[in-house]
Amino acid sequence: MELPTLADNVGFLLSRTSGLTARTANAALAEYGLRVRQYSVLYLAVDAPDGLSQRELAGVLGLDPSQVVLLVDELAAAGLVERRPSPTDRRTRLVVATATGRQVRGRAARDANSQVRHRLRALSDSEQDTLRDLLARVVRSADADST
Amino acid sequence: MELPTLADNVGFLLSRTSGLTARTANAALAEYGLRVRQYSVLYLAVDAPDGLSQRELAGVLGLDPSQVVLLVDELAAAGLVERRPSPTDRRTRLVVATATGRQVRGRAARDANSQVRHRLRALSDSEQDTLRDLLARVVRSADADST
Repeated sequence: MELPTLADNVGFLLSRTSGLTARTANAALAEYGLRVRQYSVLYLAVDAPDGLSQRELAGVLGLDPSQVVLLVDELAAAGLVERRPSPTDRRTRLVVATATGRQVRGRAARDANSQVRHRLRALSDSEQDTLRDLLARVVRSADADST
Repeated sequence: MELPTLADNVGFLLSRTSGLTARTANAALAEYGLRVRQYSVLYLAVDAPDGLSQRELAGVLGLDPSQVVLLVDELAAAGLVERRPSPTDRRTRLVVATATGRQVRGRAARDANSQVRHRLRALSDSEQDTLRDLLARVVRSADADST
Protein backbone atom coordinates (compact mmCIF):
# COMPACT_ATOMS: atom_id res chain seq x y z
CA MET A 1 0.00 0.00 0.00
CA GLU A 2 1.42 3.35 -1.08
CA LEU A 3 1.47 5.88 1.77
CA PRO A 4 0.19 9.39 1.06
CA THR A 5 2.59 12.28 1.57
CA LEU A 6 2.35 14.17 4.83
CA ALA A 7 0.76 17.05 2.90
CA ASP A 8 -2.19 14.72 2.17
CA ASN A 9 -2.48 13.40 5.73
CA VAL A 10 -5.71 14.55 7.34
CA GLY A 11 -4.25 14.61 10.87
CA PHE A 12 -1.36 16.77 9.73
CA LEU A 13 -3.72 19.10 7.82
CA LEU A 14 -6.00 19.43 10.85
CA SER A 15 -3.04 20.32 13.03
CA ARG A 16 -1.74 22.92 10.57
CA THR A 17 -5.17 24.49 9.97
CA SER A 18 -6.00 24.52 13.66
CA GLY A 19 -2.67 26.20 14.38
CA LEU A 20 -3.31 28.81 11.66
CA THR A 21 -6.77 29.73 12.92
CA ALA A 22 -5.64 29.75 16.58
CA ARG A 23 -2.81 32.14 15.72
CA THR A 24 -5.23 34.34 13.77
CA ALA A 25 -7.78 34.33 16.59
CA ASN A 26 -5.10 35.04 19.23
CA ALA A 27 -3.95 38.06 17.22
CA ALA A 28 -7.52 39.39 17.08
CA LEU A 29 -8.14 38.64 20.79
CA ALA A 30 -4.93 40.27 22.04
CA GLU A 31 -6.66 43.66 21.92
CA TYR A 32 -9.05 42.36 24.58
CA GLY A 33 -6.30 40.83 26.72
CA LEU A 34 -7.55 37.35 25.84
CA ARG A 35 -6.14 34.19 24.36
CA VAL A 36 -8.21 31.51 22.62
CA ARG A 37 -8.68 29.23 25.62
CA GLN A 38 -9.78 31.98 27.99
CA TYR A 39 -12.03 33.31 25.27
CA SER A 40 -13.66 29.88 24.82
CA VAL A 41 -14.50 29.74 28.53
CA LEU A 42 -15.89 33.29 28.43
CA TYR A 43 -17.88 32.44 25.28
CA LEU A 44 -19.56 29.46 26.94
CA ALA A 45 -20.24 31.40 30.17
CA VAL A 46 -21.96 34.21 28.24
CA ASP A 47 -24.15 31.69 26.40
CA ALA A 48 -25.24 29.96 29.61
CA PRO A 49 -27.44 32.51 31.45
CA ASP A 50 -27.36 30.45 34.66
CA GLY A 51 -23.64 29.70 34.37
CA LEU A 52 -21.79 26.38 34.02
CA SER A 53 -19.74 24.28 36.38
CA GLN A 54 -16.01 23.93 35.75
CA ARG A 55 -16.64 20.26 35.07
CA GLU A 56 -19.13 21.12 32.32
CA LEU A 57 -16.67 23.60 30.81
CA ALA A 58 -13.92 20.97 30.78
CA GLY A 59 -16.19 18.50 28.99
CA VAL A 60 -17.26 20.91 26.25
CA LEU A 61 -13.72 22.21 25.69
CA GLY A 62 -11.97 18.83 25.83
CA LEU A 63 -9.63 20.15 28.58
CA ASP A 64 -8.59 18.85 31.99
CA PRO A 65 -10.59 20.34 34.87
CA SER A 66 -7.32 21.68 36.34
CA GLN A 67 -6.70 23.68 33.15
CA VAL A 68 -10.22 25.13 33.34
CA VAL A 69 -9.67 26.27 36.94
CA LEU A 70 -6.66 28.34 35.82
CA LEU A 71 -8.54 29.85 32.89
CA VAL A 72 -11.48 30.80 35.13
CA ASP A 73 -9.04 32.31 37.65
CA GLU A 74 -7.60 34.52 34.89
CA LEU A 75 -11.02 35.60 33.61
CA ALA A 76 -12.23 36.30 37.16
CA ALA A 77 -9.12 38.42 37.86
CA ALA A 78 -9.96 40.43 34.71
CA GLY A 79 -13.54 40.95 35.94
CA LEU A 80 -15.08 39.05 33.01
CA VAL A 81 -16.61 36.14 34.95
CA GLU A 82 -17.38 35.34 38.58
CA ARG A 83 -17.95 32.13 40.53
CA ARG A 84 -21.30 31.76 42.31
CA PRO A 85 -22.64 28.89 44.39
CA SER A 86 -25.12 26.76 42.46
CA PRO A 87 -28.70 27.37 43.67
CA THR A 88 -29.41 23.63 43.42
CA ASP A 89 -26.14 22.20 44.82
CA ARG A 90 -24.17 24.24 47.32
CA ARG A 91 -21.04 22.12 46.74
CA THR A 92 -20.89 23.20 43.07
CA ARG A 93 -19.79 26.67 42.03
CA LEU A 94 -20.96 28.01 38.69
CA VAL A 95 -18.98 30.24 36.35
CA VAL A 96 -21.16 33.20 35.32
CA ALA A 97 -20.23 36.03 32.92
CA THR A 98 -20.28 39.60 34.27
CA ALA A 99 -21.84 42.49 32.34
CA THR A 100 -18.33 43.52 31.28
CA GLY A 101 -17.64 39.94 30.20
CA ARG A 102 -20.71 39.98 27.98
CA GLN A 103 -19.68 43.23 26.30
CA VAL A 104 -16.10 42.05 25.75
CA ARG A 105 -17.26 38.69 24.38
CA GLY A 106 -19.48 40.41 21.81
CA ARG A 107 -16.77 42.69 20.46
CA ALA A 108 -14.02 40.06 20.63
CA ALA A 109 -16.15 37.44 18.86
CA ARG A 110 -16.95 39.76 15.96
CA ASP A 111 -13.28 40.63 15.47
CA ALA A 112 -12.05 37.04 15.83
CA ASN A 113 -14.74 35.58 13.56
CA SER A 114 -14.01 38.13 10.86
CA GLN A 115 -10.25 37.47 10.99
CA VAL A 116 -10.66 33.68 10.96
CA ARG A 117 -13.03 33.93 8.01
CA HIS A 118 -10.35 35.93 6.21
CA ARG A 119 -7.71 33.30 7.10
CA LEU A 120 -9.98 30.68 5.45
CA ARG A 121 -10.63 32.83 2.38
CA ALA A 122 -9.25 30.16 0.00
CA LEU A 123 -12.66 28.53 0.63
CA SER A 124 -15.97 30.02 -0.54
CA ASP A 125 -18.65 30.77 2.07
CA SER A 126 -20.42 27.54 1.23
CA GLU A 127 -17.16 25.56 1.46
CA GLN A 128 -16.50 27.10 4.87
CA ASP A 129 -19.99 25.94 5.88
CA THR A 130 -19.20 22.43 4.61
CA LEU A 131 -15.94 22.37 6.53
CA ARG A 132 -17.74 23.44 9.72
CA ASP A 133 -20.45 20.81 9.29
CA LEU A 134 -17.97 17.96 8.70
CA LEU A 135 -15.92 18.97 11.76
CA ALA A 136 -19.05 19.32 13.91
CA ARG A 137 -20.07 15.75 13.06
CA VAL A 138 -16.66 14.41 14.08
CA VAL A 139 -16.78 16.30 17.40
CA ARG A 140 -20.34 15.18 18.12
CA SER A 141 -19.47 11.54 17.43
CA ALA A 142 -16.43 11.76 19.73
CA ASP A 143 -18.53 13.36 22.47
CA ALA A 144 -21.11 10.60 22.08
CA ASP A 145 -18.35 7.97 22.42
CA SER A 146 -17.10 9.46 25.66
CA THR A 147 -20.44 9.68 27.47
CA MET B 1 -25.72 40.29 14.38
CA GLU B 2 -26.46 37.08 16.23
CA LEU B 3 -23.29 35.23 17.26
CA PRO B 4 -23.11 31.49 16.60
CA THR B 5 -22.64 29.20 19.59
CA LEU B 6 -19.12 27.99 20.25
CA ALA B 7 -20.19 24.55 18.98
CA ASP B 8 -20.69 26.17 15.54
CA ASN B 9 -17.42 28.11 15.58
CA VAL B 10 -15.03 26.78 12.96
CA GLY B 11 -11.90 27.68 14.95
CA PHE B 12 -13.21 25.84 18.00
CA LEU B 13 -14.20 22.83 15.89
CA LEU B 14 -10.77 22.73 14.24
CA SER B 15 -9.10 22.81 17.64
CA ARG B 16 -11.31 20.01 19.02
CA THR B 17 -10.95 17.80 15.92
CA SER B 18 -7.21 18.37 15.72
CA GLY B 19 -6.90 17.45 19.40
CA LEU B 20 -8.95 14.29 18.87
CA THR B 21 -6.90 13.08 15.91
CA ALA B 22 -3.59 13.97 17.60
CA ARG B 23 -4.59 11.97 20.68
CA THR B 24 -5.62 9.05 18.47
CA ALA B 25 -2.38 9.20 16.47
CA ASN B 26 -0.26 9.50 19.62
CA ALA B 27 -1.91 6.37 21.03
CA ALA B 28 -1.11 4.47 17.82
CA LEU B 29 2.46 5.83 17.68
CA ALA B 30 3.29 5.04 21.31
CA GLU B 31 4.08 1.47 20.30
CA TYR B 32 6.91 2.86 18.17
CA GLY B 33 8.18 5.22 20.86
CA LEU B 34 6.99 8.19 18.81
CA ARG B 35 4.76 11.18 19.30
CA VAL B 36 3.04 13.08 16.48
CA ARG B 37 5.65 15.81 16.05
CA GLN B 38 8.62 13.43 15.93
CA TYR B 39 6.66 11.23 13.57
CA SER B 40 5.98 14.17 11.24
CA VAL B 41 9.70 14.91 11.00
CA LEU B 42 10.47 11.23 10.36
CA TYR B 43 7.68 11.11 7.75
CA LEU B 44 9.14 14.01 5.79
CA ALA B 45 12.70 12.68 6.06
CA VAL B 46 11.64 9.31 4.65
CA ASP B 47 9.88 10.99 1.72
CA ALA B 48 12.93 13.12 0.85
CA PRO B 49 15.56 10.69 -0.46
CA ASP B 50 18.31 13.33 -0.26
CA GLY B 51 17.15 14.61 3.13
CA LEU B 52 15.90 18.03 4.20
CA SER B 53 17.40 20.89 6.15
CA GLN B 54 16.00 21.71 9.57
CA ARG B 55 14.87 25.03 8.11
CA GLU B 56 12.84 23.23 5.42
CA LEU B 57 11.32 20.94 8.06
CA ALA B 58 10.31 23.93 10.19
CA GLY B 59 8.62 25.57 7.20
CA VAL B 60 6.57 22.53 6.20
CA LEU B 61 5.55 21.74 9.78
CA GLY B 62 4.79 25.32 10.81
CA LEU B 63 7.19 24.99 13.79
CA ASP B 64 10.05 27.10 15.11
CA PRO B 65 13.49 25.89 13.94
CA SER B 66 14.48 25.44 17.62
CA GLN B 67 11.61 22.98 18.09
CA VAL B 68 12.73 21.04 15.00
CA VAL B 69 16.29 20.76 16.35
CA LEU B 70 14.96 19.05 19.49
CA LEU B 71 12.76 16.67 17.50
CA VAL B 72 15.66 15.71 15.22
CA ASP B 73 17.86 15.16 18.29
CA GLU B 74 15.28 12.72 19.68
CA LEU B 75 14.90 10.85 16.38
CA ALA B 76 18.69 10.67 15.94
CA ALA B 77 19.10 9.30 19.48
CA ALA B 78 16.56 6.58 18.56
CA GLY B 79 18.54 5.74 15.41
CA LEU B 80 15.70 6.72 13.07
CA VAL B 81 17.39 9.67 11.31
CA GLU B 82 20.91 11.05 11.00
CA ARG B 83 22.38 14.44 10.14
CA ARG B 84 24.70 14.59 7.11
CA PRO B 85 26.51 17.56 5.58
CA SER B 86 24.77 18.81 2.43
CA PRO B 87 26.76 17.88 -0.69
CA THR B 88 26.05 21.32 -2.17
CA ASP B 89 26.50 23.52 0.92
CA ARG B 90 28.86 22.35 3.66
CA ARG B 91 27.35 24.79 6.17
CA THR B 92 23.95 23.08 5.92
CA ARG B 93 23.30 19.69 7.49
CA LEU B 94 20.52 17.55 6.09
CA VAL B 95 18.24 15.25 8.07
CA VAL B 96 18.17 11.81 6.39
CA ALA B 97 16.13 8.75 7.45
CA THR B 98 18.06 5.58 8.35
CA ALA B 99 16.97 2.13 7.12
CA THR B 100 15.41 1.52 10.55
CA GLY B 101 13.66 4.87 10.31
CA ARG B 102 12.11 3.87 6.98
CA GLN B 103 10.80 0.60 8.37
CA VAL B 104 9.39 2.22 11.50
CA ARG B 105 7.74 4.97 9.47
CA GLY B 106 5.98 2.42 7.24
CA ARG B 107 4.51 0.42 10.11
CA ALA B 108 3.71 3.45 12.25
CA ALA B 109 1.98 5.25 9.37
CA ARG B 110 -0.28 2.30 8.60
CA ASP B 111 -1.34 1.99 12.24
CA ALA B 112 -1.82 5.72 12.76
CA ASN B 113 -3.73 6.23 9.49
CA SER B 114 -6.05 3.37 10.26
CA GLN B 115 -6.80 4.64 13.79
CA VAL B 116 -7.36 8.22 12.63
CA ARG B 117 -9.70 7.02 9.88
CA HIS B 118 -11.64 5.16 12.59
CA ARG B 119 -11.73 8.31 14.76
CA LEU B 120 -13.32 10.14 11.78
CA ARG B 121 -15.80 7.35 11.07
CA ALA B 122 -18.80 9.67 11.47
CA LEU B 123 -17.80 10.78 7.95
CA SER B 124 -18.01 8.59 4.86
CA ASP B 125 -14.84 7.93 2.87
CA SER B 126 -15.84 10.58 0.35
CA GLU B 127 -16.60 13.08 3.14
CA GLN B 128 -13.17 12.38 4.65
CA ASP B 129 -11.70 13.14 1.22
CA THR B 130 -13.68 16.39 1.05
CA LEU B 131 -12.47 17.38 4.52
CA ARG B 132 -8.86 16.69 3.52
CA ASP B 133 -9.17 18.69 0.29
CA LEU B 134 -10.71 21.73 2.03
CA LEU B 135 -7.99 21.71 4.71
CA ALA B 136 -5.24 21.29 2.11
CA ARG B 137 -6.47 24.38 0.27
CA VAL B 138 -6.36 26.46 3.46
CA VAL B 139 -2.83 25.28 4.27
CA ARG B 140 -1.60 25.92 0.72
CA SER B 141 -3.05 29.45 0.72
CA ALA B 142 -1.39 30.20 4.07
CA ASP B 143 1.93 28.85 2.83
CA ALA B 144 1.62 31.00 -0.30
CA ASP B 145 0.96 34.08 1.90
CA SER B 146 4.08 33.51 3.96
CA THR B 147 6.51 33.14 1.06
